[in-house]
Amino acid sequence: MRFELTILGCNSAIPAYDRNPTAQVLNIQENLFLIDCGEGTQIQMSKFHIKRGKINQIFISHLHGDHVLGLVGLLNSYALGGRTTPIDLFGPKDLEEFVTTSMRLMQNHSTFPLHFHEVDTEHNQLVFENNLITVHSIPLKHRIPTTGYLFKEKAYPLNIRPEKITEHQIHYSHIKAIKAGADYNDNGRIIPNAELTLPAMPTRSYAYCSDTMYKEDIIPIIKGVDLLYHETTFLHEELELAIRTQHSTARQAAQIAQQAKVGKLITGHYSSRYEDLEVVRVEASQVFSNTVIGKEGEVYSVAFKQKN
Amino acid sequence: MRFELTILGCNSAIPAYDRNPTAQVLNIQENLFLIDCGEGTQIQMSKFHIKRGKINQIFISHLHGDHVLGLVGLLNSYALGGRTTPIDLFGPKDLEEFVTTSMRLMQNHSTFPLHFHEVDTEHNQLVFENNLITVHSIPLKHRIPTTGYLFKEKAYPLNIRPEKITEHQIHYSHIKAIKAGADYNDNGRIIPNAELTLPAMPTRSYAYCSDTMYKEDIIPIIKGVDLLYHETTFLHEELELAIRTQHSTARQAAQIAQQAKVGKLITGHYSSRYEDLEVVRVEASQVFSNTVIGKEGEVYSVAFKQKN
Repeated sequence: MRFELTILGCNSAIPAYDRNPTAQVLNIQENLFLIDCGEGTQIQMSKFHIKRGKINQIFISHLHGDHVLGLVGLLNSYALGGRTTPIDLFGPKDLEEFVTTSMRLMQNHSTFPLHFHEVDTEHNQLVFENNLITVHSIPLKHRIPTTGYLFKEKAYPLNIRPEKITEHQIHYSHIKAIKAGADYNDNGRIIPNAELTLPAMPTRSYAYCSDTMYKEDIIPIIKGVDLLYHETTFLHEELELAIRTQHSTARQAAQIAQQAKVGKLITGHYSSRYEDLEVVRVEASQVFSNTVIGKEGEVYSVAFKQKN
Repeated sequence: MRFELTILGCNSAIPAYDRNPTAQVLNIQENLFLIDCGEGTQIQMSKFHIKRGKINQIFISHLHGDHVLGLVGLLNSYALGGRTTPIDLFGPKDLEEFVTTSMRLMQNHSTFPLHFHEVDTEHNQLVFENNLITVHSIPLKHRIPTTGYLFKEKAYPLNIRPEKITEHQIHYSHIKAIKAGADYNDNGRIIPNAELTLPAMPTRSYAYCSDTMYKEDIIPIIKGVDLLYHETTFLHEELELAIRTQHSTARQAAQIAQQAKVGKLITGHYSSRYEDLEVVRVEASQVFSNTVIGKEGEVYSVAFKQKN
């Protein structure tokens, strides 16, 4: 059961060194979620064999071009391909005007329903859920209204102990209720659920935080996530520039990761001044050792945690 | 003195086989002109070493996404790079609303003046000129208002015959007038210009025709150009589809090239159904032999014609 993130673009505003602007695809059990959609995203999808037809939800963090300028092209391509499945589009207030104005002027006729969902960039709220996951917004601090997104699997059913089912001769029609936590009534004798089951698989989670300046308020929201993507536009020697442009340094991202006790930190949104990204890894790792450099085409999987 | 076209994107609407949507750069004596700007154009510019800072004029044919969705990203990058030189932007009526709406919603602050020039897509008119060239619109027929562009060098000065200048002891202060066609007055005796000069270098020209269905009206406008780019979205076996979507077939483009007696035809805007483009070349060449397949990164130069 997959839980894996593919980076499609990892550079900041100006594309450089063959690095594209921001876009990511999160695959949770074959449900694909697109997170941000910089220019060239659909081309990157082809390059990295992403099945874009399986994306039904798109989450946009903010309206800066390097996070959104690939969106209209992708929607056009869906329409040209005759897509009929609806798309849910999540993002800050102006996203709808941006998309609808472009599509109106291009006189493109959509073949599928496009549902806009305005995300409140000031509060941590539930923005989407289906049978597998919930997605909450993460209020970030950038030059324009910006939100991160927290993806969390819903609780798995408890694991049945087959030998106990056999021992008590429990009919299979009761299994679903037992997996959901019910005790079993064996002709008046209650067999507690704890005797019949083992703990469920732990749920997995991913937090996407870009673009943002250092913001400790997000720590309680992203506490303990398995995977944290936090932008690292600059090295800490450029702290003043990071503050002025409301971005983060690699050291700051690592401080957030450490305080939130996340499993792994993925860096990204690199300034074009850094051709070799090893400097980013070194700086972040000094604060938070389980840091990996986010690179285009790389896939970051979350395995189920080992039980203690 | 260069006159060369670089193809940055040659595919039609949906990017495929690593082929990008339409964009071209025309270099006339180190003046760079961008023609259309599909998604990913700025990335293609880096890949093919185009000095984008030298582009001061951008010509857009129509508002379909595959011709325009890279424009806002490029303008953003200019602003982020601190550009101060103005940009002149030419295109159909809605181009200004498309660009200004996107830039307003992104809250990007431009660092350079951006001048919009609305092009009448119904008439063949002068839309731009500088000391080197003129650019005229070419009315095309597509699903939305669309214009092509005809780039022509202005006349070169006549070539001086140095031996005649020596013979008549003509002071250098008269040379400019003679190069422009003036006779020389040698103390009352008129020496005709024809004795003092040789013909000027012939001017060179390029016509860009995309997107359009077969339209014979353009033939007088593009008559005798050195280089013609004419879209070839489909093979002729898809004529019905070409008519319905208001595109051209390879055979039709070649018929236009032949009737207009152009020097060379460059094909492009290929449907994603054609992975191998040799079929396009074969079909067009049967009608017009000097056909070359437009491919990304290829440079098509126009040399000065041999004098007869």
